[in-house]
Amino acid sequence: MKKIILASKSIDRSEILKRAKVPFETFITNINEDIYKVKISDAHNLVKELAKAKALLAKKNFLDDTLDAIIIAADTVVVLDGEIIGKAKNEEEAFNILKKLNGRTHELITGIAITETNNPKIIDDTVTTNVQFINLFDEELKLYIKNGEWKGRAGAYSIKDKASLFTKKINGSASNVIGLPMNKLFEILRKEFSFNLFQLEDSEF
Amino acid sequence: MKKIILASKSIDRSEILKRAKVPFETFITNINEDIYKVKISDAHNLVKELAKAKALLAKKNFLDDTLDAIIIAADTVVVLDGEIIGKAKNEEEAFNILKKLNGRTHELITGIAITETNNPKIIDDTVTTNVQFINLFDEELKLYIKNGEWKGRAGAYSIKDKASLFTKKINGSASNVIGLPMNKLFEILRKEFSFNLFQLEDSEF
Repeated sequence: MKKIILASKSIDRSEILKRAKVPFETFITNINEDIYKVKISDAHNLVKELAKAKALLAKKNFLDDTLDAIIIAADTVVVLDGEIIGKAKNEEEAFNILKKLNGRTHELITGIAITETNNPKIIDDTVTTNVQFINLFDEELKLYIKNGEWKGRAGAYSIKDKASLFTKKINGSASNVIGLPMNKLFEILRKEFSFNLFQLEDSEF
Repeated sequence: MKKIILASKSIDRSEILKRAKVPFETFITNINEDIYKVKISDAHNLVKELAKAKALLAKKNFLDDTLDAIIIAADTVVVLDGEIIGKAKNEEEAFNILKKLNGRTHELITGIAITETNNPKIIDDTVTTNVQFINLFDEELKLYIKNGEWKGRAGAYSIKDKASLFTKKINGSASNVIGLPMNKLFEILRKEFSFNLFQLEDSEF
């Protein structure tokens, strides 16, 4: 049976795939993201190019292999007032990011790239979700940061965890906010790779 | 320290509270929901009255106790074309519900009621989120139903699990779709009960 490779080290992406009962393996790619960030100023292009780079690097790794696999890669950023916001490096940066997003609506943009080990085809796309936060006091933001959810997350929050308390509204794909737009993934796999994530489950039960 | 009692048997509500790092205990109330459903035709009133009934029944149970606790209760329904849709009783009902929701946008309405063991005050409210599904083939719906996610869930789906594959878009509170509007809970507790769910965490770390 065809394997699924998730070319991502994000625990959130792994979790959402597991919850959707999709069997997969992870492959961690090490892309120098800073080079892309310097070259590409448009958020949609940036996440698309980063997702593609991750997918292609994973593919290269499996090139000499006889493995028949689908490779999925993604990259997520937050955009506010035209500024691309990635991950915080420390608590201070996390506070500054959350202070900016506080009481406002930002865009959460994920780029996704899908290919196969034995197929030159690569499909990429981006999905945007608007996320609105309620207004928190500085003291509350500081207490939120203490729990460490900001680590490794674009925008320094995790909507499925304690950030649910200050997420007032989202408009768009919900799984996209966690880092992997599952509906888009399902539709691309069905349409472009004749691979159905429901039938996959059928073969296991 | 004040305790939090979740008057609900929903595993989804328990999970979302746990993920928000809120310590709590559950208390299962047995309300005859059918009586309410016959009497109340308006979805907002129905979920509000059911949430209130659950909260008050839990409160009554703790009445002779010296327990200092906040009691949280909730009830969720799905509404499509003015029809209130609850939980499916079997796979056939689950299929019929999902077939109705398929490719369309429905409302997910949660009623929430909050009170304290030693306080006559009870605050209730409702939160509505619009949920849009992509269009699935009957065969895919049947395969989805097989995994059992429909059990015990209003609308016969679980957005945080495999239903993420067919949830195209939501507009409104994301946690509300899982059964507990966390932002509303946070705001009511802070405003009406002077209880801050961030400070709570501070005392533990």
